[in-house]
Amino acid sequence: MTASLRHIGFLGFDVFGTVVDWRSGVARAARPFLERHGIGVDPFDFADEWRSLYQPAMQVVRSGERPWVRLDVLQRENLVTVLARHGADVGAIADADLADLNRAWERLDPWPDAVEGLTRLKKRFPIGALSNSHIAGMLHLSRFGGLPWDVIVGAEIARSYKPQPQVYLKSAEAVGLLPHEVALVAAHNSDLQAARACGFRTVFVRRPHEYGPKQDTDLEAEHAWDVVADSLIEVADLLGCPPLQR
Amino acid sequence: MTASLRHIGFLGFDVFGTVVDWRSGVARAARPFLERHGIGVDPFDFADEWRSLYQPAMQVVRSGERPWVRLDVLQRENLVTVLARHGADVGAIADADLADLNRAWERLDPWPDAVEGLTRLKKRFPIGALSNSHIAGMLHLSRFGGLPWDVIVGAEIARSYKPQPQVYLKSAEAVGLLPHEVALVAAHNSDLQAARACGFRTVFVRRPHEYGPKQDTDLEAEHAWDVVADSLIEVADLLGCPPLQR
Repeated sequence: MTASLRHIGFLGFDVFGTVVDWRSGVARAARPFLERHGIGVDPFDFADEWRSLYQPAMQVVRSGERPWVRLDVLQRENLVTVLARHGADVGAIADADLADLNRAWERLDPWPDAVEGLTRLKKRFPIGALSNSHIAGMLHLSRFGGLPWDVIVGAEIARSYKPQPQVYLKSAEAVGLLPHEVALVAAHNSDLQAARACGFRTVFVRRPHEYGPKQDTDLEAEHAWDVVADSLIEVADLLGCPPLQR
Repeated sequence: MTASLRHIGFLGFDVFGTVVDWRSGVARAARPFLERHGIGVDPFDFADEWRSLYQPAMQVVRSGERPWVRLDVLQRENLVTVLARHGADVGAIADADLADLNRAWERLDPWPDAVEGLTRLKKRFPIGALSNSHIAGMLHLSRFGGLPWDVIVGAEIARSYKPQPQVYLKSAEAVGLLPHEVALVAAHNSDLQAARACGFRTVFVRRPHEYGPKQDTDLEAEHAWDVVADSLIEVADLLGCPPLQR
């Protein structure tokens, strides 16, 4: 096992992009919605546009300009913004229809290696979502995709969004550990950098298609992370977790 | 399925007494400790005495007299109190030894029906701990006994102790539901009464030996709870969850 991770007491996972494929899942949910309402935009472009409003919306909360609000609220506001940009008469769309599309973020497929990798890692380490999502969103997502979390920590328990240090620190505290006893597993260099600055160990998983075929960020580890892998199965291998019994 | 529970979106469980047998587990951990330190008290009496300080310690927090503090801190203070009552020189006992005994609350056996019952219930309903324990304690306990929670809510996320209404209400909010969409499963009438007052549905599980052979409380449902059962397997039966495939 990678020496620096031998004494890890908890693996916290970034989820959107690292564990699940948000782009395909959001496009899949958006396609019939866009057709039904006659909104002429490619579902993948729609997913990208919706996602592009994610960081700016959280930034308003991080900066303190806006009080804490859960991710589903931000996603819903961002959805309305994107629809309006494409000329949709949002006021004419039923609330239940918007709410259903907003729940696309709770119905995303895990990457093909994710469930097996997590299941193996769980045999040796406590594992949990350490995401910017609200708890209910993670709960639904884990039931949708069979993600076997032991616990859900992250933004909602800290009432702040990554990469604010308190999200990592309060998550470690919630699982009863010091920061150096916790590792963050993420596909995003900036997330790992913030976690490391808090004392966390770091595991980078390459997800070169998270943003589709033209992705040009986070293709490689940009720092000497403790572990670098191409899948969660490889993370399990590198951390000495035996294969599953078939 | 019991009609009133057909649309339940989440089952929250009391844990100590309802899902796990704290008395045997604490006595098991205490026995070698008491022998080692020459403290002449029966391990089961010791467990009962330690547990008897649990409600009064939480009450000081509930009343607002003391700011929020996690259950492991209260349990540790109570441990010192009980040891001192039996003449132990607590200052002479290594901190690590006390810390280890305090973790007895994280190494409790599930009741024989609990894992099967929860596993069946989880197929149909999201399930989670809704306990007065801190999150880390529930995490360790679930890994010790194989309790398949989807999520851990309860006291720590509400920063208050049951039966304060905010523990139930904030737990429902965290899983994205209204109170009437959530059921509490508990072996204690008072817990269910407080949950019902918040709008929760209620499931009573008889645990007539939680407090040992002389138990004289919570032997029966004292109100017309939505479901009354003798085990979590019976709860699964009553809620229409099919048996596990063997």
